[in-house]
Amino acid sequence: MTIYDEALTAHEKWRGKIEITSKARVHNKEDLSLAYTPGVAEPCRKIAENKNKAYEYTWKGNSVAVVTDGTAVLGLGDIGPEAALPIMEGKALLFKEFADIDAVPICLDTKDPQEIIQIVKAIAPTFGGINLEDISAPRCVEIERALIEALDIPVFHGDQHGTAVVVTAALINALKLVKKDPEELKVVISGTGAAGSAIIHMLVDLGVKNIIAFNKEGALNQEVANATFVEKEILGLITPKDFNRTMAEAFVGADVFIGVSAPNLVNKEMIASMNEGNIVFPMANPEPEISYHEALAGGAAVVGTGRSDYPNQINNVLAFPGLFRGAFAAEAKKITPGMQLACAHAIADSIPYSELSSTYIIPSAFEENVVDLITMKVAAAARKDGVTRS
Amino acid sequence: MTIYDEALTAHEKWRGKIEITSKARVHNKEDLSLAYTPGVAEPCRKIAENKNKAYEYTWKGNSVAVVTDGTAVLGLGDIGPEAALPIMEGKALLFKEFADIDAVPICLDTKDPQEIIQIVKAIAPTFGGINLEDISAPRCVEIERALIEALDIPVFHGDQHGTAVVVTAALINALKLVKKDPEELKVVISGTGAAGSAIIHMLVDLGVKNIIAFNKEGALNQEVANATFVEKEILGLITPKDFNRTMAEAFVGADVFIGVSAPNLVNKEMIASMNEGNIVFPMANPEPEISYHEALAGGAAVVGTGRSDYPNQINNVLAFPGLFRGAFAAEAKKITPGMQLACAHAIADSIPYSELSSTYIIPSAFEENVVDLITMKVAAAARKDGVTRS
Repeated sequence: MTIYDEALTAHEKWRGKIEITSKARVHNKEDLSLAYTPGVAEPCRKIAENKNKAYEYTWKGNSVAVVTDGTAVLGLGDIGPEAALPIMEGKALLFKEFADIDAVPICLDTKDPQEIIQIVKAIAPTFGGINLEDISAPRCVEIERALIEALDIPVFHGDQHGTAVVVTAALINALKLVKKDPEELKVVISGTGAAGSAIIHMLVDLGVKNIIAFNKEGALNQEVANATFVEKEILGLITPKDFNRTMAEAFVGADVFIGVSAPNLVNKEMIASMNEGNIVFPMANPEPEISYHEALAGGAAVVGTGRSDYPNQINNVLAFPGLFRGAFAAEAKKITPGMQLACAHAIADSIPYSELSSTYIIPSAFEENVVDLITMKVAAAARKDGVTRS
Repeated sequence: MTIYDEALTAHEKWRGKIEITSKARVHNKEDLSLAYTPGVAEPCRKIAENKNKAYEYTWKGNSVAVVTDGTAVLGLGDIGPEAALPIMEGKALLFKEFADIDAVPICLDTKDPQEIIQIVKAIAPTFGGINLEDISAPRCVEIERALIEALDIPVFHGDQHGTAVVVTAALINALKLVKKDPEELKVVISGTGAAGSAIIHMLVDLGVKNIIAFNKEGALNQEVANATFVEKEILGLITPKDFNRTMAEAFVGADVFIGVSAPNLVNKEMIASMNEGNIVFPMANPEPEISYHEALAGGAAVVGTGRSDYPNQINNVLAFPGLFRGAFAAEAKKITPGMQLACAHAIADSIPYSELSSTYIIPSAFEENVVDLITMKVAAAARKDGVTRS
């Protein structure tokens, strides 16, 4: 029985990986008059006077809508809202299991960015946060930015920033092992979509100066005529801006490779041409840009992939539960770049220096202290950035 | 401490009367690979091939969105989406407690009927049913009809049909006590909004021939120039269509009064002018059209109100959980008038004839067999009406 057959059987048994349960007892008329009419009128009146009271009298302080349009689901592509539901339930499950957050899947039967923005704005009063998921690029960037601008609750697109946070955490720890600083790195990135662009933004926040980025057609530089608006922004961040040679040429003397693109774009020889103490994160899923073993054979000092069957799985499950937990703890109205960087540092710092090794730069999602540490650091960053409600 | 103070304290303690909980275990990497990646890809693929498989692999077969725009909340009026959230959580709680259905509050920050229709259509892939709630009339009728037409999942507006179902159930049992048939009744109804119109539709389905309806301005008849589209439909159903006298005059010789309007419109003398064996359901909340005791003093044979502190509480909590349970059990794509009438009969029949009395025509929501009986009868009606998926 393959993992796929097993998962299908399990899903058929669950018929929903999450359920709604009651926190208020309803055993008799008296219970009903407190939780429902007539008593419920009183919290309604208080919230009508002051919307912020919703955080005191409802689930708003702890709820997240996990919103998708089903256009960019895992490796499956544009499979539609119904087919995306098992994944969104999975996200909701992880929100609960890892951070005790009440997340609700919302799968939308529309692909129009303006309509998605309008709908999420309309449902927002119900929720304390919005987690966008599996929406294709570059639409997802446009949608996320409009919602961050419009709403006073945290809005976060997992495929962009969740991945960026965990890659950055992995990089922070890998740099401790190879004893290099962000400022001195030459980084090659393959993939300039949702994840790639967010990673580049975050690396710049971390202090990286020298980044060469590639999309499907080659190096991203000033000559590229059909750049997306996301790629145009990246161009403003990367140096050199005129690199026009191949990825193999870019690898020569590089310190870091990060792949969020497609299988088998990188070979052993390219890895061998990098600087000593090189860090290789090929994260295309399920088949990476270069396999874990090939990368090691090429002489990579530290290798991390998206896969759970090799060491150093770079998995955004490590980021989003704690990130929202921290945002909620600080009563944050936004998730700032500072909070995301704090999250990356918290994930990295959860492994004591003495325990770090080339096969252990990233904690498991099941290590208990990680979410607590993230919560603390993210909440502190929210307060520092001045984005809290009160 | 009043019930309102007590409810406020309780809501502050709960901070959400409902929560999301996990049905799938996530204790280790193996669990994660079944409930999430990579295993989850398989149910996604199956649903992408056939949308109906969502009923097998997700919560779709058991989930309801409880949707409001906060425009007609209880007796509080247009208090907005945030302030409506405690009530929608209450509904969700009752769905779970009484029928084990996973209901999610969705409070919308828009009052535009077309936008509400568009949004509910867009979020529908996530849910197995839509329960509209506390949306002002006559907009709610327009919204409900458009959604019933557009969607292949049950759509139900509680304020219209929930009340109608329970009033009809109460009437069925009251008629057993006074030994009258629907066909011979003269019925006076005060209120031609969401609830009033739905009650009239249902009474006609029950066999009632003679109905006189009143709105705020007086008798609804062919002369009324500013009738809403809902009232125009009622006009097509009621007889006589030319009644143009006062409510007091309408009461003379009437058998049934049903009020879903405003306090203190009816007095003892009006009750006394009705036929013997008269049935009086003044349900304006919290102050009825005539008080329970005044109605008895006027000689009413059976009295029911919306209040929990008198006998015969006509409470739509009795209707919606079982109605959706029955619809889900039959895999119904709609909730038909036949299913609603079956629900009313099930509620009525849950009290054995030998136990019926003028102070016990309606079961308590806490009587265990009621939802099971409703489920059975509603599912049978769905199959009879041919609205099941398979």
